[in-house]
Amino acid sequence: MRMVDLIEKKRDGGTLTQEEIKFIIDNYTNGSIPDYQMSAFTMAVFFKGMTDLESTYLAMAMLESGDSMDLSSIEGIKVDKHSTGGVGDKASLVIGPLVASLGIKFAKMSGRGLGHTGGTLDKLESVPGLSISKTNEQFLEQVRNIGLAIVGQTGNLTPADKKLYALRDVTATVDSIPLIASSIMSKKLASGADVICLDVKVGSGAFMKNVEDATHLAELMCAIGRNCGRKMTAILTDMDEPLGCAVGNSLEVIEAINTLKGHGPEDLKHECLEVASYLVYDAGKASSLEEAYKLLEGQIDNGEALEKLAEMFECQGGSKEYVYNTDLFQKAKNVIPVLAKESGCVSKINALEIGLSSMILGGGRETMDDTIDPAVGIVLNKKTGSMVEKGEPLAYVYSNGKNEEECVNRVLNAFTISNDVVDKKIILKVIR
Amino acid sequence: MRMVDLIEKKRDGGTLTQEEIKFIIDNYTNGSIPDYQMSAFTMAVFFKGMTDLESTYLAMAMLESGDSMDLSSIEGIKVDKHSTGGVGDKASLVIGPLVASLGIKFAKMSGRGLGHTGGTLDKLESVPGLSISKTNEQFLEQVRNIGLAIVGQTGNLTPADKKLYALRDVTATVDSIPLIASSIMSKKLASGADVICLDVKVGSGAFMKNVEDATHLAELMCAIGRNCGRKMTAILTDMDEPLGCAVGNSLEVIEAINTLKGHGPEDLKHECLEVASYLVYDAGKASSLEEAYKLLEGQIDNGEALEKLAEMFECQGGSKEYVYNTDLFQKAKNVIPVLAKESGCVSKINALEIGLSSMILGGGRETMDDTIDPAVGIVLNKKTGSMVEKGEPLAYVYSNGKNEEECVNRVLNAFTISNDVVDKKIILKVIR
Repeated sequence: MRMVDLIEKKRDGGTLTQEEIKFIIDNYTNGSIPDYQMSAFTMAVFFKGMTDLESTYLAMAMLESGDSMDLSSIEGIKVDKHSTGGVGDKASLVIGPLVASLGIKFAKMSGRGLGHTGGTLDKLESVPGLSISKTNEQFLEQVRNIGLAIVGQTGNLTPADKKLYALRDVTATVDSIPLIASSIMSKKLASGADVICLDVKVGSGAFMKNVEDATHLAELMCAIGRNCGRKMTAILTDMDEPLGCAVGNSLEVIEAINTLKGHGPEDLKHECLEVASYLVYDAGKASSLEEAYKLLEGQIDNGEALEKLAEMFECQGGSKEYVYNTDLFQKAKNVIPVLAKESGCVSKINALEIGLSSMILGGGRETMDDTIDPAVGIVLNKKTGSMVEKGEPLAYVYSNGKNEEECVNRVLNAFTISNDVVDKKIILKVIR
Repeated sequence: MRMVDLIEKKRDGGTLTQEEIKFIIDNYTNGSIPDYQMSAFTMAVFFKGMTDLESTYLAMAMLESGDSMDLSSIEGIKVDKHSTGGVGDKASLVIGPLVASLGIKFAKMSGRGLGHTGGTLDKLESVPGLSISKTNEQFLEQVRNIGLAIVGQTGNLTPADKKLYALRDVTATVDSIPLIASSIMSKKLASGADVICLDVKVGSGAFMKNVEDATHLAELMCAIGRNCGRKMTAILTDMDEPLGCAVGNSLEVIEAINTLKGHGPEDLKHECLEVASYLVYDAGKASSLEEAYKLLEGQIDNGEALEKLAEMFECQGGSKEYVYNTDLFQKAKNVIPVLAKESGCVSKINALEIGLSSMILGGGRETMDDTIDPAVGIVLNKKTGSMVEKGEPLAYVYSNGKNEEECVNRVLNAFTISNDVVDKKIILKVIR
């Protein structure tokens, strides 16, 4: 088998076999296939696509390129969720405790943020003392003991995906749905859960800009997961505006805590309950989605979900007190209201701009080497569809001085105010 | 400027500026842009194409990546021809002497053969003592003195093209018309002629399999040349069967000599006169193409074209005697007739198979490191359209023993004999 022939086959619209795809990934990982052949191949995939089966074989080959997490020593069904990345997305911090509080094991390996989107690990680290670095054994033990762990990737998971992603990033071949789907799913398969719910963000602040592309990606990821024996759901959610109100690390943790206390923003709460319902139903803990939803609402009302998050904080080296009293979180020096220049209905909040505004305050990374200021960020006072009077605060900028003025201007300009009344929904589509 | 953005621009169907293309080629040549970005770019070009102007800028940037031949010290109009490569193509050895015998300077840098197609340099080297290695000064002096030189590339011409071609070869991005056109034209521009005639081969034995693709390539090459101030013609010629009868190095030189003596195969003679007519007309030596054609026929009849070839042999270290007496050429040990198994009309001779048959005898190279046996090859006794009786020779295999039996079988199978009478023409289209 020669790589140049496989590139040509894909270039000419052919369908690769499992053996051919495994040959490519194995030899790329071990260095026998050079980057310059792999990048020509990925560009050919960009144009010619891949079938569901080819994408499955690609995900499997990347999965097999490294270690995977073996959760079989933990009793019962293990669940996981994954978001394709958005602005203000703290849903894992709500969904994990919710489902774990019902006795369902939630074992999640998460990532760091880059650019305008935040990462769950960075958010968790705004809790003083809390560590996201665990050995495999510590991770398994925590899941076994309290049913909930959110940690950084352990071991040598999917090295092929890491190498390939770095190459795609510099060769303009990131935006290929089969490559995105295989990359995400290789990592999800490697982390070992039986039931997976994918949150595919759609809109200006997301990687997928429209429902059509997002549907294609979601269906393909579900197909890959099912081909590998996982129970799959994908939910398309709106990312034209940030999720919830808080954007910034400690601000988002506080909002997640408030949501588990029953007073979170409506869109965040509904999305979390919806995603969690599918996990609960697929784990066999409810006989219908409606029942699952109600069960989960009960876990907010009875305080058990909140207590589960407190347990996780403690297990990972933080203090439960931060859950009970969010005033303990480090505060930003300045809180600057961003005031509306006109009255009307908020018709749009550019999520990308809000994400970038938080980043330039120090709340996010431009490159992987940047350090993060956990206290800064933005809290929206108005969401899309809200009525606003001239002079009312649209949002608050939490700043420690860095790029403060630029940030206030960008936040103001991120809002569009019109005379029409706008209605917004968070869940756009469910794919099962 | 970032290469990843330029890859993306091309990937999304954008048109690159001259500055952007120069940035790519300059930085690829000096190593700042890595192979893996360049191969992703060429694959994007494969799918999205390039405009005539982009292709011109690419050819110019590759031209500027190295030295070019300055023919300005030679008086008068300098002409050149280029063939895209076929089986049995010895036309340069006929056309060069023809036009030079009319006082038009023919200054050609040629290449070696690989695979099923031969190279003019290898053919010339079957003349004992003849050298194709000349310094720039020697090359210029020879053109100045006798008006004719066919040598190997001198100096560091188009290093960007060399580097890029090697990359395309292993990344399945050879078959892109803008990249082929820019590659050929960068070399033609570098060799300095004012008038260029391109012979674009079409058919089973050629790179371009159909008239449509060949037309596209020819038009693009002419546009690039004209954009750079050259007088351009492209002639599409048939390569479904070999050109002329002889395939193999000394066999082809002998056939070229015979053609200059007035008894070459009809298709070869006509093609050479046609190509030469455009060069003569564009050099201003005739007031019409018809006049040019007649003038050139006269140069065969009066022996001046033959004498010009003899002069070139001598100038490059060979002996004129080989022109006057082709029996001096080294002979193959065995000459094996390939006999027809049935009677009928030759409807097809697979040029690719004839080329490969000659190669396996030792007449061509599989890799650039192989050495060539100048004496071996195939001489067709029947061409497409000829009537043949069962038992009559279709061709003769000239062998020194290597792969002889396989070769005879392949040559036999390369012929298709049918009951229909077939008519064949060599010139398919002229693009001006």
